[in-house]
Amino acid sequence: MNIRFYNARILTMNGNCDLTEGELWTKDERIAYVGPAKDSENIAWDREIDCQGNVLMPGFKNAHTHSGMTAMRSYADDMPLQEWLNTKIFPLEAKMTEQDNYDLTQLAILEYLTTGVTSIFDMYLSPKDIAQACIDMGMRCVLVSGLNKFGPAVEEMENRYNKLNNMHPLITYMMGVHAEYTCDKKLLEEVSRLIHKYEAPVFAHMSETRLETVECVERYGMTPPQFFDSLGLFDFGGGGYHCVYFNEEDMDLFVKKGLYAVTNPGSNTKLASGIAPIGRFLEKGMQVAIGTDGPSSNNCLDMFREMFLVTGLAKLLQKDASAVDAHEVLKMATVNGAHAMGLKDADVLAEGKLADIIMIDLHQPNMQPLNNITKNIVYSGSKQNVKMTMINGRILYYNGEFLNGVDAERIYAKANEIIARLSAE
Amino acid sequence: MNIRFYNARILTMNGNCDLTEGELWTKDERIAYVGPAKDSENIAWDREIDCQGNVLMPGFKNAHTHSGMTAMRSYADDMPLQEWLNTKIFPLEAKMTEQDNYDLTQLAILEYLTTGVTSIFDMYLSPKDIAQACIDMGMRCVLVSGLNKFGPAVEEMENRYNKLNNMHPLITYMMGVHAEYTCDKKLLEEVSRLIHKYEAPVFAHMSETRLETVECVERYGMTPPQFFDSLGLFDFGGGGYHCVYFNEEDMDLFVKKGLYAVTNPGSNTKLASGIAPIGRFLEKGMQVAIGTDGPSSNNCLDMFREMFLVTGLAKLLQKDASAVDAHEVLKMATVNGAHAMGLKDADVLAEGKLADIIMIDLHQPNMQPLNNITKNIVYSGSKQNVKMTMINGRILYYNGEFLNGVDAERIYAKANEIIARLSAE
Repeated sequence: MNIRFYNARILTMNGNCDLTEGELWTKDERIAYVGPAKDSENIAWDREIDCQGNVLMPGFKNAHTHSGMTAMRSYADDMPLQEWLNTKIFPLEAKMTEQDNYDLTQLAILEYLTTGVTSIFDMYLSPKDIAQACIDMGMRCVLVSGLNKFGPAVEEMENRYNKLNNMHPLITYMMGVHAEYTCDKKLLEEVSRLIHKYEAPVFAHMSETRLETVECVERYGMTPPQFFDSLGLFDFGGGGYHCVYFNEEDMDLFVKKGLYAVTNPGSNTKLASGIAPIGRFLEKGMQVAIGTDGPSSNNCLDMFREMFLVTGLAKLLQKDASAVDAHEVLKMATVNGAHAMGLKDADVLAEGKLADIIMIDLHQPNMQPLNNITKNIVYSGSKQNVKMTMINGRILYYNGEFLNGVDAERIYAKANEIIARLSAE
Repeated sequence: MNIRFYNARILTMNGNCDLTEGELWTKDERIAYVGPAKDSENIAWDREIDCQGNVLMPGFKNAHTHSGMTAMRSYADDMPLQEWLNTKIFPLEAKMTEQDNYDLTQLAILEYLTTGVTSIFDMYLSPKDIAQACIDMGMRCVLVSGLNKFGPAVEEMENRYNKLNNMHPLITYMMGVHAEYTCDKKLLEEVSRLIHKYEAPVFAHMSETRLETVECVERYGMTPPQFFDSLGLFDFGGGGYHCVYFNEEDMDLFVKKGLYAVTNPGSNTKLASGIAPIGRFLEKGMQVAIGTDGPSSNNCLDMFREMFLVTGLAKLLQKDASAVDAHEVLKMATVNGAHAMGLKDADVLAEGKLADIIMIDLHQPNMQPLNNITKNIVYSGSKQNVKMTMINGRILYYNGEFLNGVDAERIYAKANEIIARLSAE
């Protein structure tokens, strides 16, 4: 499949946020050319797309989500994190089947496509079903284990690691644990032995709430990241989700070990968890990526909301309107997300990279005038501006239509059936 | 013109946030019926619309904006308010012509339609041109004077008050001043005499930044709202825009006088001005409405972003995930906005009310499942869910198309020409 995009503004994200005018060609799942318009008469194009001056850029990387939680969107709002988890979420999840998880992940994938997400970093129940939903719908997915003391043992994580990493080109699997507060020390030590065997990075929810952080210090005399590091869990990289209550030593550790802080401002806002000190992270030289968290705590999977919040909340926290430039945010939402997820070939637009590309529609009032297109994307952009989402060389969403062969209405109906069953007494 | 909407979920906003299934009929600019499906065979329908189970609700009221500032979207970001105004905005505005203001307001109107805004409360240069742009495009507009010591005198405000209030059914004009810090006391006293003559309410930017508030106290020994009240400016109602730095006495004053606080969380976030204590406002019984502020400080005109921020920032400020329920936010964005703007007939969906109606598309992944539709609107809704915007009985936007006879591309081109000219040395 050879596709030619012409008459485009191209934001490669390769080094800076400059836009250039030109063409982008794909061949199967890879980018074959990015640059000025040039002769292509000798190529048999399967499709030629006039971009009408719109922007082509790398797709957004949603670097922390729990896709299967779509069932619980607006099911229990306006509650603190622990109460919400214990009284509302966990009881429903206990009844959720593997088929439910497959169907609910499909609903999330539809939403990802509308907001230009081309890869997800997904921690949820029954990862093989998440993987199958992604394969069936064309989504690139990095699964991460949410190991904890209530679920499957470490051996199962190892099995999944070996099995799911060889399942399909769209799927990879990373080791991880749910969080310090849902694992005991012995379990984390077993995980450490395993990741040393495979030299694998580890991700986990980390310092999301003040309570979690305080209790970890009470238990171990260390903050969650320092406790993880003391067990050797960060010897091969990885990082944390949320990272709201990081102190200077936590940041130094993340810099030293090259770890990724994945920020989730929508969820942290809605659950009143707090504001992560992103400006300070950047000053220290930390690597930051962005995730939506699950659709039950956010409640949407919209990278535009997250991007605005990353910079906006930093401005409020620092009382400084110049905090966290929009260009840094774009980098977090694309390049840094890809690197956090180990997707080295899905980070920027360049020859040989994976064709995970979105088109941003500038022919809409919120993107005009064109004083600064990249700032428009972060400050006034919306998922409505996502004209196309291409993953692995396949156009899955174009002009508001899903092209991946799924029946959206059937998926909506399924989600409603599932929540009715799960929430029945 | 008789239009019948059937197979709808109707959110009247008349008293609560309950949805009912049924029909809504319009006759010319008014709502003729809201209720269960009933026989309508004797009516000659000009159009019958199957809502497919989607939501009909009152359009959003953007209760504070400066539409003509679209030229400066992403022109100068990441700067503090005063520096941004003095070095970037004011020099450009000095060069702006009346025709520019007309053209730039048209660009803003396109954006309002995409986000379901059916009335705007607009304070900007040359109000007759704002009015003309709104009339030509079918937008309902309440103009408000931005009187200050650098612009036209009080007599001109009186002329405009009498002239523009009789210009067109879509247009009303309110007295107002830009802010305490751009008016001297003598000028405000003249305004007070005038509003007493007409028994008119007054609106102004108020307590937007800490600096503004502190300086007012230094000058007059009173906060901005107390100073305004001491001059009799609130004797006939009105209110303030922003209201970030309100103390308990300011809130008591607003409650006692029935004044409206119009909150602008997007702008207050991007300019790092601060977080208005909305939860406390509600506890005190204050009336709160929502505005986007201008597209140069926000940078978009998206009521969905504002709604999420109103409740989200309150949750962060109060460290309480239950702060400011989504239903309160929906009321602010519709009913309260209409009342603040004096639009008593454009507040709820009921027989005899003005047909300012939007349709929210539930057939999209971010609105599924339907656990709680009104919470979905606030927490996961997006302008992409705005399927229709009707103002004064005319459908101006439907399925992503502008139906008000304007050429959007021509308006975009104009906006780019204008900013190029204004920013040229």
